[in-house]
Amino acid sequence: MSEPPVTVLGLGAMGSAIATRLRETGHATTVWNRTAARIGPHAEAGATAAASIAEAVDASDLVLVVLLDHAGVRERLEPVSAELEGKTVVNLTTTTPGQARETAAWAAEHGIAYLDGAIMAVPSMIGDQSARLLYSGDERAHAAAKPALESLGTVEFEGTDAGLASLKDMALLSAMDLMVLGYVQAIAMMRTVGVPAVTTAEEVRAWLTRMLPHGRELAAIVDGGTYDTGGQSVDFDRAGIASLITASREQGVRADLLEPHRKLLDELAATGHGDSDWVRVIERLTIH
Amino acid sequence: MSEPPVTVLGLGAMGSAIATRLRETGHATTVWNRTAARIGPHAEAGATAAASIAEAVDASDLVLVVLLDHAGVRERLEPVSAELEGKTVVNLTTTTPGQARETAAWAAEHGIAYLDGAIMAVPSMIGDQSARLLYSGDERAHAAAKPALESLGTVEFEGTDAGLASLKDMALLSAMDLMVLGYVQAIAMMRTVGVPAVTTAEEVRAWLTRMLPHGRELAAIVDGGTYDTGGQSVDFDRAGIASLITASREQGVRADLLEPHRKLLDELAATGHGDSDWVRVIERLTIH
Repeated sequence: MSEPPVTVLGLGAMGSAIATRLRETGHATTVWNRTAARIGPHAEAGATAAASIAEAVDASDLVLVVLLDHAGVRERLEPVSAELEGKTVVNLTTTTPGQARETAAWAAEHGIAYLDGAIMAVPSMIGDQSARLLYSGDERAHAAAKPALESLGTVEFEGTDAGLASLKDMALLSAMDLMVLGYVQAIAMMRTVGVPAVTTAEEVRAWLTRMLPHGRELAAIVDGGTYDTGGQSVDFDRAGIASLITASREQGVRADLLEPHRKLLDELAATGHGDSDWVRVIERLTIH
Repeated sequence: MSEPPVTVLGLGAMGSAIATRLRETGHATTVWNRTAARIGPHAEAGATAAASIAEAVDASDLVLVVLLDHAGVRERLEPVSAELEGKTVVNLTTTTPGQARETAAWAAEHGIAYLDGAIMAVPSMIGDQSARLLYSGDERAHAAAKPALESLGTVEFEGTDAGLASLKDMALLSAMDLMVLGYVQAIAMMRTVGVPAVTTAEEVRAWLTRMLPHGRELAAIVDGGTYDTGGQSVDFDRAGIASLITASREQGVRADLLEPHRKLLDELAATGHGDSDWVRVIERLTIH
């Protein structure tokens, strides 16, 4: 085996997929999990089962952390900070940018090369190039971890601020969340007249596929920064969103998902921006 | 000219595009507008300028209404209800489903064949098959208006409930609105670390293009109605959305657009549905 040994802490669905893939691509893999039941299948398949985190950390210079949450990461890593000194930790646990920076600061204090990662994939995609792994943080850790991470999917380094990978992950997940809620709102409205959800979903998919590219125009207005494009104004958009809200309620569907848009437009109108391009709402979102 | 004469009431951007297209496809076109300045170019190009709504209505058995809003429709049509008797009115003014039904009831009282329409296009698309015209209402009006409407774009009849075209329009526009807000949220988050909006927009576009087809799975869960799929649970989703909200605020971006999702999940958790598939949020939206 020419691949460097790797330790994986945490064998949930994602941790298991990662440990399996690393083993299958020739890495001597050591695994640890809080509950022992999940370790068995990995040990049988050829991984080394560590009896403790300290033992797991001792086995490899590269330690991947795939725990449930940030609290778990701090709880598990703090007791082995001395053992981790000089090693590389890649934290693939889902955390906020602030939590990533907090762990990075802790690692720096203890002489640990730290990389924070975000996995834009479900476990079944691990090993496929369609799985995107964003990471950010220490450049030394970056160089050390890259070959192993590349066996898991397509790897993108976002920069030396440890929070960047998480931030991009959270930004894209936020966009997805709102898009998915768009499906939910449309389905809720159409099923009041008996239209099956799958029928509406197909309509929404076709419609949004056509509309998606227009995001670039909106972005260009934001980058322009003046919001005097002569396009759809705050006042015009207020009338439009008011119709959507009324239509939803007429059909017996709460308009909660649409209300924040109206509130942001109302704030703009109240501060003298009724004639601005509606995209100025982004300035209300940003706390200056 | 073998095409039937058509009257167009209202020469805003959309009304003008429609009148122009009808004239160019061989319909004798009569136009009326509240302010006379917009009539001139149409008259010069060969349309008949009507001096009053009654005169405009008298010129054709098919009357297309493209006014600013529902109030304008009622204000303009009520005085000519006798003149409209036996004719076909197609109302392409943007209205809510309830307003469409209200106008349909008024038309029925006065012996007017009424069709309500929604145009899923911008004026520059009129005449192209990419412009979708949804309509619903009276079947007699449907048969009478179809040839003229087909010269404007692709025509879809939604059913005899006059509110259906507007409802579908509003449902799809709601989905688009939330998707667009997804762009706004992601751009707001990423520009806190200096990423240009157009860069984020391209990331969002690529990501949402991949995620869009998954709406079908969500819809199938709604149609199933049990929400016991073993997929992403309410409690799991609550943790996810909480991370998005925290991440947004950490970066100095208000999380107003994401809050309604959390509120709906909290309501589900509080009513004993923490283990349900998260898509059950749609049941909270629907006022039973």
